[in-house]
Amino acid sequence: MNFPPEVTIKEVGPRDGLQNERTVVPLDAKVEWINLLSETGMSYIEISSFVRPEWIPQLKDATEVAKRIKRDPNVTYAALVPNQRGLERALEVDIDEVCVFISASETHNLKNVNKTIADTIPIIDKVANEAVQNRKQLRGYISTVFGCPYEGETSIDQVLFICDKLLEMGVQELSIGDTIGVADPLHVENVTKALLNHFPKDRIAMHFHDTRGTALANVITAMNLGISKFDSTVGGLGGCPYAKGASGNLATEDLLYMLHRMGVHTGINSEKVSEAATYISQHVPALSSHQMKLLNS
Amino acid sequence: MNFPPEVTIKEVGPRDGLQNERTVVPLDAKVEWINLLSETGMSYIEISSFVRPEWIPQLKDATEVAKRIKRDPNVTYAALVPNQRGLERALEVDIDEVCVFISASETHNLKNVNKTIADTIPIIDKVANEAVQNRKQLRGYISTVFGCPYEGETSIDQVLFICDKLLEMGVQELSIGDTIGVADPLHVENVTKALLNHFPKDRIAMHFHDTRGTALANVITAMNLGISKFDSTVGGLGGCPYAKGASGNLATEDLLYMLHRMGVHTGINSEKVSEAATYISQHVPALSSHQMKLLNS
Repeated sequence: MNFPPEVTIKEVGPRDGLQNERTVVPLDAKVEWINLLSETGMSYIEISSFVRPEWIPQLKDATEVAKRIKRDPNVTYAALVPNQRGLERALEVDIDEVCVFISASETHNLKNVNKTIADTIPIIDKVANEAVQNRKQLRGYISTVFGCPYEGETSIDQVLFICDKLLEMGVQELSIGDTIGVADPLHVENVTKALLNHFPKDRIAMHFHDTRGTALANVITAMNLGISKFDSTVGGLGGCPYAKGASGNLATEDLLYMLHRMGVHTGINSEKVSEAATYISQHVPALSSHQMKLLNS
Repeated sequence: MNFPPEVTIKEVGPRDGLQNERTVVPLDAKVEWINLLSETGMSYIEISSFVRPEWIPQLKDATEVAKRIKRDPNVTYAALVPNQRGLERALEVDIDEVCVFISASETHNLKNVNKTIADTIPIIDKVANEAVQNRKQLRGYISTVFGCPYEGETSIDQVLFICDKLLEMGVQELSIGDTIGVADPLHVENVTKALLNHFPKDRIAMHFHDTRGTALANVITAMNLGISKFDSTVGGLGGCPYAKGASGNLATEDLLYMLHRMGVHTGINSEKVSEAATYISQHVPALSSHQMKLLNS
């Protein structure tokens, strides 16, 4: 086993977590929660999404969230930006990092943003250009890399094509998403090797969901290939839009448990993460992380 | 990644699962459930425990279970046997495999069987001898290999000492238990390497609990070192006696999902396993496997 001594965890709970939960968390609670997350030692929090409010009502208060949270200078506060209008809103509140997104599979992209992949690329290219001009950090999410709910398995060539496009636009980091939590370690190894054949490893973060219990097996596989950046959500927030009650994103606490016990440095205080999880669990019932279940026992 | 093309799953739900659930499952339901499990293609089912009925009331009907189940000649029906009296009961119902058990940590062994490790060894030695004389297969469970709820981490030397003792008694297979679900992949790698330095790999099965979400990460780590036998329970039965609502044993469905998607052969029909899980879920509420949650969605 040969894994990086240090891992960066990117907390995406306030965005990818809440967007997939039915419950709408009140603005005050979001702000308080993000403030608690800022005190855990995390260096990265994705706080919301500047998509059209009617698309994702759970995140319609993105502007207010961004304005009201206490910003720690050691934390990058990021948000999802789908288009020009979203970018304007993100720039108004001076978000640190702009995250563009696109699916690797045509049907998922169509259902997600109502556009083909070919039509999406110029739109996010424009967002990316302007974000860079405004000296914003730039991240690119690629969804359905390991499988699509409509098309089944995604081809690695298609993933590499999308990665190339995003990097050409100036994206500094790719978040490689197992959106529906289907990946297994062998698949992760194959995709990761293909990515590392084409791109430097510091450009790559992995974004696993724990829908079928494989998330940490996938993390350890990617770590053994040198990947050191992972997305996760406190409490395992994010359910699965296709399956009520199913596990959502990889839980930050589960990831921290494994990493810290292996002696991997994260800079994050697990107890403070548990406090933040307990706080948000008052607003989102039935969080799925193993640590939450232990806490609630 | 270099893993065995074939893996044997040892279903321990009717014993290790039910013994850690509060609910007492009626005899009829146990029999029906084990019959369903026998139809899944599994080659091994641990059906109960011949400990004193007052110790584990959930399993007090071991004799009746063994008498009433339909035995498939391709399945090994095993049971836990703590002592001479337990062995007599197991032989009366002609169990296929006798499983002795001992903890690697002194305090856990004391709390579990009310005896020191030194006092336990001669007792199971006698059971083992007589089981072998009766041409029974013989398995040895070692608990708390990766950590003890009372003593913390367990020394690898202590684990190797216990393994040696069990193999000397004629045990054909060691089940290396992460009883409280604390193991991480690095720890699993270290323990597995130490075991493989001393014993042939076909003597070793791994028994992981998913209390903290690490079970499949631990499985993939052990598989990469050549281990090809794993214990699990349908539905993730087995909770955690120390934490209400927490995940229990590694769920057979989660293990099957990962293995089959990686192309690993198990001989087991996943759909039939889901049917067996659905059946027992009527009697044990809130099963924890990810697949159960997907099924129930």
